[in-house]
Amino acid sequence: MTDFPSAEYEARLARAQDAMRAAHLDALFFTTEAEMRYFTGFRTLFWQSPTRPWFLIIPRSGLPIAIVPEIGAALMQATWLDDIRTWCSPHASDDGVSLLIEALRGNARIGMMMGRESSLRMPMVDFWKLRDRLESASFVDASALLQGLRMVKSSAEIQKIAAICAIASNSFANAAQIFHEGQRLRDAFRAFKIDLLNQGADDVPYLVGGADQGGYGDIISPPGDEPVRAGDVLMLDTGATLDGYFCDFDRNFAFGHASDAAKTAYDTLFRATDAALQAARPGMRCRDLYRVMADVIAQDGSDVGRFGHGLGLQLTEAPSLISFDETVLRSDMVITLEPSMTVGPGKVMVHEENIVIHENGAELLSRRAPPELPIL
Amino acid sequence: MTDFPSAEYEARLARAQDAMRAAHLDALFFTTEAEMRYFTGFRTLFWQSPTRPWFLIIPRSGLPIAIVPEIGAALMQATWLDDIRTWCSPHASDDGVSLLIEALRGNARIGMMMGRESSLRMPMVDFWKLRDRLESASFVDASALLQGLRMVKSSAEIQKIAAICAIASNSFANAAQIFHEGQRLRDAFRAFKIDLLNQGADDVPYLVGGADQGGYGDIISPPGDEPVRAGDVLMLDTGATLDGYFCDFDRNFAFGHASDAAKTAYDTLFRATDAALQAARPGMRCRDLYRVMADVIAQDGSDVGRFGHGLGLQLTEAPSLISFDETVLRSDMVITLEPSMTVGPGKVMVHEENIVIHENGAELLSRRAPPELPIL
Repeated sequence: MTDFPSAEYEARLARAQDAMRAAHLDALFFTTEAEMRYFTGFRTLFWQSPTRPWFLIIPRSGLPIAIVPEIGAALMQATWLDDIRTWCSPHASDDGVSLLIEALRGNARIGMMMGRESSLRMPMVDFWKLRDRLESASFVDASALLQGLRMVKSSAEIQKIAAICAIASNSFANAAQIFHEGQRLRDAFRAFKIDLLNQGADDVPYLVGGADQGGYGDIISPPGDEPVRAGDVLMLDTGATLDGYFCDFDRNFAFGHASDAAKTAYDTLFRATDAALQAARPGMRCRDLYRVMADVIAQDGSDVGRFGHGLGLQLTEAPSLISFDETVLRSDMVITLEPSMTVGPGKVMVHEENIVIHENGAELLSRRAPPELPIL
Repeated sequence: MTDFPSAEYEARLARAQDAMRAAHLDALFFTTEAEMRYFTGFRTLFWQSPTRPWFLIIPRSGLPIAIVPEIGAALMQATWLDDIRTWCSPHASDDGVSLLIEALRGNARIGMMMGRESSLRMPMVDFWKLRDRLESASFVDASALLQGLRMVKSSAEIQKIAAICAIASNSFANAAQIFHEGQRLRDAFRAFKIDLLNQGADDVPYLVGGADQGGYGDIISPPGDEPVRAGDVLMLDTGATLDGYFCDFDRNFAFGHASDAAKTAYDTLFRATDAALQAARPGMRCRDLYRVMADVIAQDGSDVGRFGHGLGLQLTEAPSLISFDETVLRSDMVITLEPSMTVGPGKVMVHEENIVIHENGAELLSRRAPPELPIL
């Protein structure tokens, strides 16, 4: 019933417990979807509902403990976990806190997600109650530890990401059939989403983009009712999923004709991505791979902060391809290459590819964008 | 560029500031998607990426202050807000915290989402830094205040929810064309999602369900590869969206034939929903509306904790139809009626409708389920 055989989750647990011993942690305590799914295989869209908190404890040795609302018991019992403790949630006065106190008591150093990219997915007042009641415990930041584990993928994970990248590549290859001049942007997005589902995607949690003359004003907008016009550059950036794993890449298309500025920007970004594809290898720092792309673009102040990131259970994960990320690339990391630049006043362009790092360099998981801006 | 004219957001701000004065709050401070969208109209799927925090401050008087990553500046400028402060995120050492300190300084009592159904969507270490630097401020729980505002909808909001409920009702009416015996559950879900998009839904962030002989084992699972068989009861529960507003209801279908137990459970749940439809009116407590349904079912220990909830910007919102929720129903609340019961060992059945409360009673937003279990 989970997306991988138990051996996959056992291996994740073993790596985590090795890291916990090195960091002198007695337990890990999680409240968020990605971490719970990483260790248990518990996958549901029910996280859309903010009503109930969900908890997972990884002890320094032994198996994980799930502390979950009764409504999730059947699905959690279908995972590899044995120790599943439930309560009837929502509860008038004790939404899992007593169960947490009982399970965490006796642990001195408890690691949690507290740093970059993290959230606390439980009521803060309940976390404070927990902290006060476990007065001899200290809660410490374990986000770097967890991110370090998750950024190196298993071959089974890489297969899932490769499969959803292939699906999205197939849909982008259908662009000439899906998109047309005069089409409302909202309809273009809807048609693309349907094509992704028809190609085999389970879901399309992320589809953003834009269309405007020679470039687009921003890269995170939902589509509106405006029609695509000749001279527009249309960009769609999609995070579709298969078995809960994401792809994350975009494609650019011009309609009717393309401005010289758009063609030139496209070429620059294509060369920046090429340079990164050639350069990426184990042992290289993320900041240096960022620099490889920035040097091709050589356009000050033009980027949106980073030129790529990790990818997997979430649309974006650590590490970041950014000037200050010292993370060393390792084999089996899956990352995006995502250089961007300005095309004119208030206009940007962004490219994106998904790759996996091997001993001998990068392998593309997305089908490489065409070398010239395609004109539909 | 937002989903409503500015007057809608101005009215929300005015109601919030009235409530803030009554609660002696100097500012509200938000980190989460729903609250930010409620006050600004800022809508993007980019929240899927956990990388960057986003902040909103509501002062006791005057306009909201958005403190957002540079990548969101263009989209935020398209809302009705004037005061938009940005930084280049992710940042090596200061992911918006200095901007927050500057904006919040001088406020003595700052309300936040800390209670039931809430999350902290920023690194906890950054929140602690903020609290330490604003040592004369106290951060207090304002979740009940906010939920109280959000649970009463404007007529413009009710229109959006009614529209997405109509779309999902159309798709459920197509069930005989969409679903068939022998179809893998995964394909049935995909086909239903495509139909929702074709009917006009923007997105389908939530689609869960199950199929098994005479009932289903749980109600939050993703679909697997097993085929739908004669004698199965198939349930799909969908939260589709239009302009960022959700519907949330389900339908049950039997294949080939239905067991007497399944037919009886369906009838009981239909009558429980009918009783709630007749009873619901302003002035009634949520716990009493829960009791109306529980009395029809009269089956101890059979429910999953609650029989309905608020609905709107999120799939589930306050209040809850549950034994301990004292919230008084008011006109223009939109809620779900969601009674459930056991059908046999390890099998449950759940019904759901979406309604709006008027002065004279409940109006259905979903098209009423058929009175007998439909057999496909």
